[in-house]
Amino acid sequence: MKIAIVGAAGRMGKMLCALAEGTDLEVVSKVDVAEGYDKAWADDVEGVIDFSYHVAVPASVEKAAAKGLAYVIGTTGLTADEQKVVDAAAKKIPIVQSGNYSLGVNLLLELVKKTAQVLGPEYDIEVTEMHHRHKKDAPSGTALMLAKSAAAGRGVKDEFTYGRRGDIGERPVGEIAIHALRGGSVVGDHTVMFAGDVERVELTHKAQGREAFAAGALKALKWAKGQRPGVYTMRDVLGFA
Amino acid sequence: MKIAIVGAAGRMGKMLCALAEGTDLEVVSKVDVAEGYDKAWADDVEGVIDFSYHVAVPASVEKAAAKGLAYVIGTTGLTADEQKVVDAAAKKIPIVQSGNYSLGVNLLLELVKKTAQVLGPEYDIEVTEMHHRHKKDAPSGTALMLAKSAAAGRGVKDEFTYGRRGDIGERPVGEIAIHALRGGSVVGDHTVMFAGDVERVELTHKAQGREAFAAGALKALKWAKGQRPGVYTMRDVLGFA
Amino acid sequence: MKIAIVGAAGRMGKMLCALAEGTDLEVVSKVDVAEGYDKAWADDVEGVIDFSYHVAVPASVEKAAAKGLAYVIGTTGLTADEQKVVDAAAKKIPIVQSGNYSLGVNLLLELVKKTAQVLGPEYDIEVTEMHHRHKKDAPSGTALMLAKSAAAGRGVKDEFTYGRRGDIGERPVGEIAIHALRGGSVVGDHTVMFAGDVERVELTHKAQGREAFAAGALKALKWAKGQRPGVYTMRDVLGFA
Amino acid sequence: MKIAIVGAAGRMGKMLCALAEGTDLEVVSKVDVAEGYDKAWADDVEGVIDFSYHVAVPASVEKAAAKGLAYVIGTTGLTADEQKVVDAAAKKIPIVQSGNYSLGVNLLLELVKKTAQVLGPEYDIEVTEMHHRHKKDAPSGTALMLAKSAAAGRGVKDEFTYGRRGDIGERPVGEIAIHALRGGSVVGDHTVMFAGDVERVELTHKAQGREAFAAGALKALKWAKGQRPGVYTMRDVLGFA
Repeated sequence: MKIAIVGAAGRMGKMLCALAEGTDLEVVSKVDVAEGYDKAWADDVEGVIDFSYHVAVPASVEKAAAKGLAYVIGTTGLTADEQKVVDAAAKKIPIVQSGNYSLGVNLLLELVKKTAQVLGPEYDIEVTEMHHRHKKDAPSGTALMLAKSAAAGRGVKDEFTYGRRGDIGERPVGEIAIHALRGGSVVGDHTVMFAGDVERVELTHKAQGREAFAAGALKALKWAKGQRPGVYTMRDVLGFA
Repeated sequence: MKIAIVGAAGRMGKMLCALAEGTDLEVVSKVDVAEGYDKAWADDVEGVIDFSYHVAVPASVEKAAAKGLAYVIGTTGLTADEQKVVDAAAKKIPIVQSGNYSLGVNLLLELVKKTAQVLGPEYDIEVTEMHHRHKKDAPSGTALMLAKSAAAGRGVKDEFTYGRRGDIGERPVGEIAIHALRGGSVVGDHTVMFAGDVERVELTHKAQGREAFAAGALKALKWAKGQRPGVYTMRDVLGFA
Repeated sequence: MKIAIVGAAGRMGKMLCALAEGTDLEVVSKVDVAEGYDKAWADDVEGVIDFSYHVAVPASVEKAAAKGLAYVIGTTGLTADEQKVVDAAAKKIPIVQSGNYSLGVNLLLELVKKTAQVLGPEYDIEVTEMHHRHKKDAPSGTALMLAKSAAAGRGVKDEFTYGRRGDIGERPVGEIAIHALRGGSVVGDHTVMFAGDVERVELTHKAQGREAFAAGALKALKWAKGQRPGVYTMRDVLGFA
Repeated sequence: MKIAIVGAAGRMGKMLCALAEGTDLEVVSKVDVAEGYDKAWADDVEGVIDFSYHVAVPASVEKAAAKGLAYVIGTTGLTADEQKVVDAAAKKIPIVQSGNYSLGVNLLLELVKKTAQVLGPEYDIEVTEMHHRHKKDAPSGTALMLAKSAAAGRGVKDEFTYGRRGDIGERPVGEIAIHALRGGSVVGDHTVMFAGDVERVELTHKAQGREAFAAGALKALKWAKGQRPGVYTMRDVLGFA
């Protein structure tokens, strides 16, 4: 499958070009306003991945709609008007749109939700995440999404506990706790534990490079090519929707 | 819900009686041929869990069918004729029948299958299990089931690699390896790893006592009570079927 | 080696009697004020383990001193006067005295201290512990001891961080954080992580039963038998002093 | 401290130059036969790290001896004659010589040995390692070193078990097993488990980049500067000798 990467000079764009090497996706157009990059798409392009800038998305997605190409949007921060253009284009072409293209994280979100449903409130839920020492906020967005997934699966409110210390008393039924570890150069580890009276289930994701958060875009485009027009998410790509 | 435990003097039966305490399941009949146990079911019994001996199952399940009670069978080793009686009874009552009533293990089997489907062959699969030093066979039955689940999800044959040593060369695409650790008093730990180029997903189960392999029978009975007649498995109970 | 367990009817005493079975330590006297237990020591006793009550320790340790027996004290809460009797007895016999007889925990305390010394401040230290849902305080005493060991090894004050949340900024150099997980029936897991720019070292202890906190007393007594008079700790028994 | 890197154009040399940035080691001479690199040492060099080629080591170490500089050798494959030159130089200057400059791995080797000594044969030892799918041999050299360290600490022969399968019977006392996992892009994870009846101790090292195997050379040089002449190993640097 011949593809175009829009925003090819950016960090994500460069990663995607590198990740596509040696796969059955061939990057025939590396599109970017930066010098040395393509300014137009090759004629034989069959699909497009867009990690550019929100103002550039409408024109690009309309062009893809005119050509009938599958389209994957990783660009974030679209205004309401820009999103309307995307939604209109989705009447003609399949579009995948997500804020996180990690296969593993998107998968884990689904597994956590299902596990919380199945195991029920007698299994205590604890979420831990570890990131490098330079990360300035806590917990990570992914940890919060995992905790919310657990809460949704269990059917409880997404209120979380942080930092147990002192005379905390017995663990309240239904509590979900999040622990943010920081240290070294860890790219991103997440674990959700379900601890029952007789067994524990632990679901873990470990990102080994920032590429982890881009790689799913390639799979998304391959998946999208065969789909009917519409806006899809990674849940659809992974077959959970 | 008022229940009978058949085989209440056995190891599993005793565990189930203990596990039911403090739940909304009340054991009103502890049935066993051993001295000091009930020989009949209380009139108000609403469901039955059977961890007895295979020859005793037909009469017991027929009695439940006559009374219209939900029935859970953990007893194994039924002959073909005995199984026929179970199947006939299942035309009148809901029956759950499984060789392993661990909620966590049954859940993990499903999560592993789904993960193998979603992540595809570019994620290498490794299964590890650890059990106490007295376990005489390897790998564990659960590890084999997990590996088969992974193979089924991926759509490959269930042939597994054991004990890498020497000049093994690069890892073949699609290989699934099993590693059996032995030591101390570990009840049973299992992990299935999916290792890709940019991320790892790890799914883990840890049994904290032998009760782990019985506890799901209680949940199965509660689930069965509202079902139509038929033979069900833990997949049904967990909502995967 | 023939031994006496003083406080044999208590929880720790019972565990020690059970743990000694099948070892080369033979419990010839199970001493306790409770009915059915020995009220005196057998003549051939070669060593004594005392998990009784603080008021009972002075008379018992003096008797051991008179007989020249090795003595292990797990009983806690001794008054200053009672401790003086112990110290006086230690002029005649070897006495091991500790508040925690887990071999693994005592070992980990030493390994953590050494690791903190060797790896230096460019390795970030994070301590995690997990205990069952009924534990009412946080963090665990063992987690605090491990964190203090790390601080001592590194030569920093024992001030610890709990519960990162919000705009925390970059991790301060030298910070030591403690995370208390609660859930299910976990007896006690502890991990100390040292996360550097290029590698991580993780040191973990997992108690599989409450016996873990008693078992080292048997080893301590075997070790003590050959020692010169004095008061020793588990550091001595493990060979770190 | 101002230092020279000899072999600065090589993979290890480049890593060391990058790792030194932002530390109190300043690389004032990047020495290599490759174009664009220094051909001589700056006058103010206080120490030298040599990751070059074995034939180049004798002249270089003699020059350092003449100047009285601390010297760290990561270059391997020295002939007996070349080693003699190193040994002679070590009469005038401190030289650290090792085949592996990972701080964490060298530390773990010592911790494993000590733990095997302390915990004794009633703790079963299992070594696991995981590396990327392209690694062609098994087990890793580091895993073998760890297993040998455990055997040495325990005082048993270094014979190891691989690949349990079938009717293996109970685990023999004193057995040490090694498990080689392969998958994805894992740089190198190693764990040594000590599993007893009541507790487990686990010692883990995770390399997050190939730099892990070079980084200790910088620490070695800083340590060496204050030492008396002689040949040292990483054990000395870490304070275990």
